[in-house]
Amino acid sequence: VTAAAAGVLMRAEIAEQPEAVARTIDATAPQAAALAAAARSRDVRSVVLLARGSSDHAALYGRYLLEGRCGLLSSLAAPSLYTTYRAPVDLSRTLALAVSQSGEVPEIVEALGYARSRGALVAALTNSAGSPLAAAADHAIVTQAGPERAVAATKTFTTQLAALAALAVALGARDLAAPLARAPGAIERTLACQAPVLAAAASLRGERAAVCLARGYSFCIALEAALKLKETAGLWAEGFSTADLRHGPTVAAGALPALVFHAPGRLANDVEALERALAAAGSRVVSIGAGRELPVDGALPEELAPLALVVPAQLLCERLAVLLGRDPDRPPGLHKVTQT
Amino acid sequence: VTAAAAGVLMRAEIAEQPEAVARTIDATAPQAAALAAAARSRDVRSVVLLARGSSDHAALYGRYLLEGRCGLLSSLAAPSLYTTYRAPVDLSRTLALAVSQSGEVPEIVEALGYARSRGALVAALTNSAGSPLAAAADHAIVTQAGPERAVAATKTFTTQLAALAALAVALGARDLAAPLARAPGAIERTLACQAPVLAAAASLRGERAAVCLARGYSFCIALEAALKLKETAGLWAEGFSTADLRHGPTVAAGALPALVFHAPGRLANDVEALERALAAAGSRVVSIGAGRELPVDGALPEELAPLALVVPAQLLCERLAVLLGRDPDRPPGLHKVTQT
Repeated sequence: VTAAAAGVLMRAEIAEQPEAVARTIDATAPQAAALAAAARSRDVRSVVLLARGSSDHAALYGRYLLEGRCGLLSSLAAPSLYTTYRAPVDLSRTLALAVSQSGEVPEIVEALGYARSRGALVAALTNSAGSPLAAAADHAIVTQAGPERAVAATKTFTTQLAALAALAVALGARDLAAPLARAPGAIERTLACQAPVLAAAASLRGERAAVCLARGYSFCIALEAALKLKETAGLWAEGFSTADLRHGPTVAAGALPALVFHAPGRLANDVEALERALAAAGSRVVSIGAGRELPVDGALPEELAPLALVVPAQLLCERLAVLLGRDPDRPPGLHKVTQT
Repeated sequence: VTAAAAGVLMRAEIAEQPEAVARTIDATAPQAAALAAAARSRDVRSVVLLARGSSDHAALYGRYLLEGRCGLLSSLAAPSLYTTYRAPVDLSRTLALAVSQSGEVPEIVEALGYARSRGALVAALTNSAGSPLAAAADHAIVTQAGPERAVAATKTFTTQLAALAALAVALGARDLAAPLARAPGAIERTLACQAPVLAAAASLRGERAAVCLARGYSFCIALEAALKLKETAGLWAEGFSTADLRHGPTVAAGALPALVFHAPGRLANDVEALERALAAAGSRVVSIGAGRELPVDGALPEELAPLALVVPAQLLCERLAVLLGRDPDRPPGLHKVTQT
């Protein structure tokens, strides 16, 4: 791979997101409606989301939406409780929703099968309709990201978020349908932030570690940005909710650069206050949000803001990796389970 | 504070753990039995644990025990879903268990009140019987750590683990009662690992970041060790399950020192394999477990191993902080909510 080719795939796939998300919203709406009908007929009261890696961060987004907006007690599974410990749990009123772009992570396929054996309604959210995970599920919700060739997930992640939002709409959050239709446009406009992204990447070149911060519905983006920084740029970043940072890690965080993700809503002041405190303590703060250093289109409400908020982080990871002489398309030691 | 006094409180409180845990096992058994009876009479099927910081890591331990051994679908709450978003969730067959040593974290008290308003059976696990959290709960399980004066939680954490194990016993994991009675002795014998701890601390003096790794029931200890390293020694450590490290962060982890926690059981080989891979990649590995570099008494089964496994990590944090000229009793910028 030549230096000039580094990041070509990741850049292209980041740019494809408006179309990929638009296709996914259209394609998953009827699938989500069918799953919601099945959940109602089974009197489902709770949701267990099964995932690893970036898909686990999408699952966390789903957790907030499905509990916060649809009233379903939701949690991220600890897969080993199913695959290894065979937890004797009654899942007869539970939706087990596995999230995996490839649909081929053996642990997740196995965990979904165990959930079925305990009585769960089982569903798969995947980018591959023909995957073992889809085959193992009663219902498949299939994202329309198209083949993702860069190892670092980008369009498969945002399409997972879009599909989870579509599921939340089907499960009762009807008011999100109209703003969800605006998500492709918001992502498109956010892609224009290339110049400030390059400047921010250049300013982070010499850093070894960082924190990524958000809260509430956008907390998942802090975790996803941190994982992407590790994978692509080798920057040892850790994601926190602003609330958790205050409960201890703030001691060590004062000296570290911080990516801070701002969304509208009732927790905006909390994020703003922590950003000011970190800046006052001497941290290099990269502020991401509507009207911020890395500007994000402001068309989306709090619950959908993550779909656009992640975009500057993706661009930043790609640029920083290339500046550091890395190829973000092929991080050393990482593999996609399959190239859907 | 003189340098000679640095860590005096934390060292003393680490050493008090055998007695504190023994007292807690005795005191919480009847409280746990009463709560279990109430849970059965209410036909409780799921558990939501509410906590922040070290208490959140104890809550994660509780999640594994209560789901893995007692069959109750368990999760860690996202407190903002209750305090800010007022999730319209039905908790009528749910136990909401708040964990807070002080019992005075306003967010947790508020979240517990919200859970009650949604129908939950509400309980508090706290070191302070007179706290607002205990007052807000139907049932209090009160740890017997005594006053904890160092800011970094040690004996309040292990007594929380012991109380959660007592609750698991009351909720059906009867076979854990006898080994739980052996925990104080196992902790006592593990406290003897002072010499290798000092050597390990000295070897980590020049490090800026680290990873802490474990899996299954002991995953909580990786998170707790990482938080303690941040708080007391300013070392930017992040905790992972070994499974999650393989899903991405392994790219950046190869160069970092690693604290690896070994427990008996079906996931021991997974942890062993990752430790070998990290060592082969050049990481300085601090191996913690029975017969390891930092030896842990081997008397406890997998589900109770965390009670002893955390002890070398506590000692290591205290020693490393002092070597670095810090006072682990009073990390800058951190406060206990109250000195129970």
